[in-house]
Amino acid sequence: MENSKLWGGRFKEGAAKILDTFNASLPFDKKLYLQDILGSKAHSSMLERCGILSKEEKEAIHKGLDSIKKEIENGEFIFKLSDEDIHMAIESRLTELIGNAGKKLHTARSRNDQVALDFRLFTLSANYQISSLVLELISTLLDLAKEHTTTIMPGMTHLQHAQPVNFGFIMCAYTCMFVRDFERLTSSYKRNNFSPLGSAALAGTPYAIDRFYTAEALGFEAPTLNATDSVSDRDFALDFLYDLSMLSMHISRLAEELVLWSSYEFRFITLSDSYSTGSSIMPQKKNPDVPELLRGKSGRMYGNLFRLLTVLKGLPLAYNKDTQEDKEAVFDSFENMEICLQILKDLLKTMQINKDKMQEACKKGHLCATDLADFLVSHCNIPFREAHHITGKAVSYAESIGKDLSELSIEELCKVDSAIPKEAHSALSLENSMNSRNSYGGTSTKSTLAQIESLESWLSLATIAHHKNQRKMEF
Amino acid sequence: MENSKLWGGRFKEGAAKILDTFNASLPFDKKLYLQDILGSKAHSSMLERCGILSKEEKEAIHKGLDSIKKEIENGEFIFKLSDEDIHMAIESRLTELIGNAGKKLHTARSRNDQVALDFRLFTLSANYQISSLVLELISTLLDLAKEHTTTIMPGMTHLQHAQPVNFGFIMCAYTCMFVRDFERLTSSYKRNNFSPLGSAALAGTPYAIDRFYTAEALGFEAPTLNATDSVSDRDFALDFLYDLSMLSMHISRLAEELVLWSSYEFRFITLSDSYSTGSSIMPQKKNPDVPELLRGKSGRMYGNLFRLLTVLKGLPLAYNKDTQEDKEAVFDSFENMEICLQILKDLLKTMQINKDKMQEACKKGHLCATDLADFLVSHCNIPFREAHHITGKAVSYAESIGKDLSELSIEELCKVDSAIPKEAHSALSLENSMNSRNSYGGTSTKSTLAQIESLESWLSLATIAHHKNQRKMEF
Amino acid sequence: MENSKLWGGRFKEGAAKILDTFNASLPFDKKLYLQDILGSKAHSSMLERCGILSKEEKEAIHKGLDSIKKEIENGEFIFKLSDEDIHMAIESRLTELIGNAGKKLHTARSRNDQVALDFRLFTLSANYQISSLVLELISTLLDLAKEHTTTIMPGMTHLQHAQPVNFGFIMCAYTCMFVRDFERLTSSYKRNNFSPLGSAALAGTPYAIDRFYTAEALGFEAPTLNATDSVSDRDFALDFLYDLSMLSMHISRLAEELVLWSSYEFRFITLSDSYSTGSSIMPQKKNPDVPELLRGKSGRMYGNLFRLLTVLKGLPLAYNKDTQEDKEAVFDSFENMEICLQILKDLLKTMQINKDKMQEACKKGHLCATDLADFLVSHCNIPFREAHHITGKAVSYAESIGKDLSELSIEELCKVDSAIPKEAHSALSLENSMNSRNSYGGTSTKSTLAQIESLESWLSLATIAHHKNQRKMEF
Amino acid sequence: MENSKLWGGRFKEGAAKILDTFNASLPFDKKLYLQDILGSKAHSSMLERCGILSKEEKEAIHKGLDSIKKEIENGEFIFKLSDEDIHMAIESRLTELIGNAGKKLHTARSRNDQVALDFRLFTLSANYQISSLVLELISTLLDLAKEHTTTIMPGMTHLQHAQPVNFGFIMCAYTCMFVRDFERLTSSYKRNNFSPLGSAALAGTPYAIDRFYTAEALGFEAPTLNATDSVSDRDFALDFLYDLSMLSMHISRLAEELVLWSSYEFRFITLSDSYSTGSSIMPQKKNPDVPELLRGKSGRMYGNLFRLLTVLKGLPLAYNKDTQEDKEAVFDSFENMEICLQILKDLLKTMQINKDKMQEACKKGHLCATDLADFLVSHCNIPFREAHHITGKAVSYAESIGKDLSELSIEELCKVDSAIPKEAHSALSLENSMNSRNSYGGTSTKSTLAQIESLESWLSLATIAHHKNQRKMEF
Repeated sequence: MENSKLWGGRFKEGAAKILDTFNASLPFDKKLYLQDILGSKAHSSMLERCGILSKEEKEAIHKGLDSIKKEIENGEFIFKLSDEDIHMAIESRLTELIGNAGKKLHTARSRNDQVALDFRLFTLSANYQISSLVLELISTLLDLAKEHTTTIMPGMTHLQHAQPVNFGFIMCAYTCMFVRDFERLTSSYKRNNFSPLGSAALAGTPYAIDRFYTAEALGFEAPTLNATDSVSDRDFALDFLYDLSMLSMHISRLAEELVLWSSYEFRFITLSDSYSTGSSIMPQKKNPDVPELLRGKSGRMYGNLFRLLTVLKGLPLAYNKDTQEDKEAVFDSFENMEICLQILKDLLKTMQINKDKMQEACKKGHLCATDLADFLVSHCNIPFREAHHITGKAVSYAESIGKDLSELSIEELCKVDSAIPKEAHSALSLENSMNSRNSYGGTSTKSTLAQIESLESWLSLATIAHHKNQRKMEF
Repeated sequence: MENSKLWGGRFKEGAAKILDTFNASLPFDKKLYLQDILGSKAHSSMLERCGILSKEEKEAIHKGLDSIKKEIENGEFIFKLSDEDIHMAIESRLTELIGNAGKKLHTARSRNDQVALDFRLFTLSANYQISSLVLELISTLLDLAKEHTTTIMPGMTHLQHAQPVNFGFIMCAYTCMFVRDFERLTSSYKRNNFSPLGSAALAGTPYAIDRFYTAEALGFEAPTLNATDSVSDRDFALDFLYDLSMLSMHISRLAEELVLWSSYEFRFITLSDSYSTGSSIMPQKKNPDVPELLRGKSGRMYGNLFRLLTVLKGLPLAYNKDTQEDKEAVFDSFENMEICLQILKDLLKTMQINKDKMQEACKKGHLCATDLADFLVSHCNIPFREAHHITGKAVSYAESIGKDLSELSIEELCKVDSAIPKEAHSALSLENSMNSRNSYGGTSTKSTLAQIESLESWLSLATIAHHKNQRKMEF
Repeated sequence: MENSKLWGGRFKEGAAKILDTFNASLPFDKKLYLQDILGSKAHSSMLERCGILSKEEKEAIHKGLDSIKKEIENGEFIFKLSDEDIHMAIESRLTELIGNAGKKLHTARSRNDQVALDFRLFTLSANYQISSLVLELISTLLDLAKEHTTTIMPGMTHLQHAQPVNFGFIMCAYTCMFVRDFERLTSSYKRNNFSPLGSAALAGTPYAIDRFYTAEALGFEAPTLNATDSVSDRDFALDFLYDLSMLSMHISRLAEELVLWSSYEFRFITLSDSYSTGSSIMPQKKNPDVPELLRGKSGRMYGNLFRLLTVLKGLPLAYNKDTQEDKEAVFDSFENMEICLQILKDLLKTMQINKDKMQEACKKGHLCATDLADFLVSHCNIPFREAHHITGKAVSYAESIGKDLSELSIEELCKVDSAIPKEAHSALSLENSMNSRNSYGGTSTKSTLAQIESLESWLSLATIAHHKNQRKMEF
Repeated sequence: MENSKLWGGRFKEGAAKILDTFNASLPFDKKLYLQDILGSKAHSSMLERCGILSKEEKEAIHKGLDSIKKEIENGEFIFKLSDEDIHMAIESRLTELIGNAGKKLHTARSRNDQVALDFRLFTLSANYQISSLVLELISTLLDLAKEHTTTIMPGMTHLQHAQPVNFGFIMCAYTCMFVRDFERLTSSYKRNNFSPLGSAALAGTPYAIDRFYTAEALGFEAPTLNATDSVSDRDFALDFLYDLSMLSMHISRLAEELVLWSSYEFRFITLSDSYSTGSSIMPQKKNPDVPELLRGKSGRMYGNLFRLLTVLKGLPLAYNKDTQEDKEAVFDSFENMEICLQILKDLLKTMQINKDKMQEACKKGHLCATDLADFLVSHCNIPFREAHHITGKAVSYAESIGKDLSELSIEELCKVDSAIPKEAHSALSLENSMNSRNSYGGTSTKSTLAQIESLESWLSLATIAHHKNQRKMEF
């Protein structure tokens, strides 16, 4: 029996059935149907322009592709595993619909560059969508920040109370991470926005094609430079997987804090009932499932990055089937990140900030110790290291009598070390302490407001620039 | 509006819709339906034995669960995302079918230990299935080995010809890797074959339950020792993901060789047409897609392992929602490995071994150089390091006149160094060379046959022991 | 100029200098000096037994090796980068010391099996040492557990108060993890305790050697079965790296809790000053650096595992230079884990448990909610799901008036739902609640004591079995 | 006994000795000495400008720092583990040398921002050095490419002969990868080139400092925006580790080909003796150790990336000791990559290209099959899919009579299918075939030359831009 595959000419035995299941990428790469159709429209328009297809053939192809798009979107398209992948599935159907012109579509093109094109288009578009959501998240964080530039809470290092900060300042810290994420995504987008179409199998094609035309029609900066590199390059996918890993790492840090802040011990925030869940056995529970899952999603993102890095390690040129393992990783990271960003934004918007609990927490941990040390340096001309030492003794004394440093009376304070003058006592107010840190990037309300202003103007500019990146692909 | 979730009593606002999609594990954990039903049957039988359920209640529950099993297997069961997970989905349906008795099933049990039980049962059963397939693969490799104990090929180090070996010997090398994989799987199975059921939420239950009964009924060695550990432990899943990573690493090595051996340069083997594919653009191509994909699958396996390791890093006790990210990794690695093992076995069975090409290749690379050195040591009492040096010169000379060492005439050989006697020339036959390496584990045909015998007797014993591990869970 | 390397016979040009630095493993593999010397002693003893070396030669070799051992341990040995690796370094020096007999040592052996042997011996011995430390850690945890079977604290899920447990019970949970770690290490040890020595380059040797003799002399179960597998197998290293990754994952979980418990918000424990550090700028800080570093070390362990998995992916048989990248990963994970286990044990021994803070914390979070639900089920014949719902309402009510469930008066409680009887009020004591969870593996003091007893008897048996594994290698 | 640490004021017990070893980063972070000194000079200059230090104090500090630099570089500096880290080590020594002024250096600064600064400066400078080496590698590859635009070899997909290409074209493919690597490094550099100095512990400082001054003095674009983010941000390190992972992935692909091409089966290249090694037991071996190690180094790079990703997962703000685990990963990846790039460049320069072997290899694999198919499309108006099918039959026929497609006579060719005209025979020349693929990015000599020209002009521009990035930090 002759092999019925499109590439079956030289094969004597039919492919083993299990092979279909193993080899076929159709079950997952059908997500690329839109990119495949757009790519084929661009390719056939170009072929016509270059005199390789007639106008009629090109029009038949476009019409056929439009029908197929409708069929797929209406759920009427029949996906056959024996077609192996979305490219073959669409081409077979096209030939059914329009006859020989369908077969000609593959002229000057190979599955290798078709895969490379479709997957790259998808990844760039996913990058665009994630970037948009990051901008929305930043906007939400800045709203929160603006509301809370005077909401004092204990700033932590080592999860120990360190110095008083305001909640808006902490929101700015996270905003800065997401700003870097946006810039990382954007730089990946630009570095990879080149069209592989026309690279053919690995070495280009004898047809006099116009790769600049298809590149422009599909919204690329230009065609790629080398055909062999083009069909084997997956940097665009890895860059995206890395960008999402970093983004999810930052989200996991924020999520960890949301979990901590929701605990009975902290209670700095109360998550909205709409973003919490209960327990099947413990009726009193209100669980921060959402931040926990957000934190856990980092595993998936890291794993997907490592998956593809492993696949590409030591692969010779040019295309190897190993790279078929690339798509699911990107689809999975993308879809999960999309919902993560949406739900995180909503969670932040609906959570309640418990200012009183934050304020109360500031009374633990001798938060003003640095202020005392700084006072000794700046008012008493004591070298910092000695001031640090004297303050350490004051803290030790306060703890020995069960008080916070801020609760020491003037007399108690002065008894600790003869170098401490009475005026030093005034250094111990939380508001003063926070607002004293007024250096550029510091936590004072004034400095925090300046940070918010900077970030908002960054956001405006980034939003405009981002919209310009939106792909326009009309045919 | 009151929250309609089973755990919704204390909640004032309905859960946000996006939360359902984000939180719900039902779309993937429905694969655990069988384990869930078996666990519930064991649990309810135990509850009856302990006087917590009446006989009628228990029987209603069993009957209800049997109906649900049928509904699911016939595709009639309606999965509702709002049920969140398979446990709730089945319990809700049970209550619909049998009323109050259904609600009582959850007595002395929590979703936490139910998840832990179902997922562990699934993983152990997946381990059993993969282990069976590994035994089949070993059997296939040994068949190949037996056929080829005199098929000479160049043994390689650094991908350079090193010494002549037989193909059966190389198949034994791979068999040894898979033997370790089987043993690794078995040891994971035993280490994790303990029942968490009855741990409840995290601290046990006030009901006088019998965890030994359910453990035995479900085929476990015993119940786990500590309830909090039980609901948060995912070692069983990690062990399995690691075992599969190692297995896939070994497969990737064999696959790499299959790809090399199929190349025009090597041609040591010809893959069956049934396990090869063609090119859409290059009509002459016959691509080793299957070994390439087998090689690439290692990325997925490694990625899934790393995913779960990341999730668990730094998680406090006991259950946290992060661990919901555990299941898809195991499902994905398991299903992919299952088909990998099946197709690899078939590929090996159907491929053609090109003895002539292997033999021909042995004429390159001065494969008998070590033999010459050894001859000088054993017959001429020359220290090994000097013999090595003299042979190096002989190789150099052979290359300078465009010959392989084995092609040097007696005269040519003796001219290289006065220390070489005429008899040394006899040391340069491939058969002699291979069969001279007759030490335990060596490549001589005799030693290879001994290895095959050892491995076959290991296989018989392992098969018997393995079948004894098969879970029997009848109710 | 002739190449001066031991293998330089056929080489025309000297090796590039940068190559020495790049290729040489000596800077790190000198850690294997002891294993190399032991292996050489066993090998030469065997060669003598088999009549390949004379008694005098063997004795000269042993004496020479003993001198070299002393030289190395006294810091007098000169390591030359040009020797490339520890094997060559020792062999060169041996020849310097004892002349021709030194050169004969390499008979029937190759660097490939020498590397495989030395590294395997090192890894097994590292495994033994880590296992010993795990047993010590378990012993420390059990001591803590025994002291605290009545120390009530809030058991957590989702970092939310769930049910009252005792601190000893939580220590048992961690003990269970480390028990699995010990068993995982032991099973790796046994699976890999086979001797590759005598495999030679990849195919065995023509010499009539006795691999069973060297295997036994070096404390192995038996020689490995196949020479090619033996020189390329690194499963033993991967298994160990995985075991350490799992161990570090468990440690990271405990470390996370230690960090949380040390925070001002929790204060369940106070770390000893000896295991805490301060801040250079904030005099009041007492930072849990040790548990933080313990948590962070997991990154290193995971990274080293993935390093070696990546190296081996897709490597053809037999030895390839890529595997030189194996040793540093094992050394690094081993040495870091060694100190982690020592310091964790000491940290646990010296930390202070703040029972009062734990007790106080139990008054938040309606910890007895499940007890109320259970009471309704068991005393009022209400199906669990309804009881859960009613309790949810009680919690909601308590929160609305700013109380913990346990603080509701009988009257308040009964007003919530007509189904709640007065007797239900008694269900809300913390002690009662904890001790009611008396099922196997539960948190009641009685059940916790039973767990401790089981774990202690496991520890005794494991310790005895472990000591039997200790390698005896005398010559 | 009082604690002697600089931060020891409040501590009652001395730190445990093992803690020094565990906690101290000095053994590895002493690599940051130069960055630390530069940072301290910039900081003290700024403090003077802002009136916080006197001119004399500043000058004493600079002079002291200069002495310390010399001490370190001359090997005279005594590193004490008890100093914990390089920052403390230098500050202690400074105070020894210049007294009180040394203690004042720490004013308005914390170890947290000092670590962040030093490590960032180091990473950016490492980035610069690696980028320079990438440019050199690109230059070497382009030289090779230029020499070989007419050197025909079989282009491969799936490691099967696909279409004839020229060797220069393949070198261009690798060049394109390294161009992306350079651009990725550059974008990381720019995204992270901001100064954290002046962030203090986490919240800024009350001193009226000038962060713009220190940022500029140290060659940064500007100061960072938020103090808390600044001390906990490690994106700069992760970006660099990712960039190196990608670079090493690309190197591993080239290295794999170098290993393949060096094998007896391929022999497309001969590595220079200076970059090869021999075997201790097999005198004829010439092993491609260098490309093998280059390939294996990817494991280390991936592992280091995942190490740090793991460390940061779920870390709350701001500084946590876990991040001390960041430096060794960067040092290790950087140093290894540095030597990899140097040796790869030299290896490429010294290897011999065996044109005859490449040419000979082209006679296998029916490389001109696509050309035949294309001929049928373009000259006979046969739809591509049918042409593909007909050519498949021709290949099948050629194989059946033991010939390559190119070896078929006109008669034999025409017998395969009546659709094949006589003129088709001319389509089967290798030169014609290669040069026919003349599309943009294709393999024809003309197109390859155009690629080289593009890449060279990119290289000129990139080199100029790169040199502008070089840090100037003079004081």
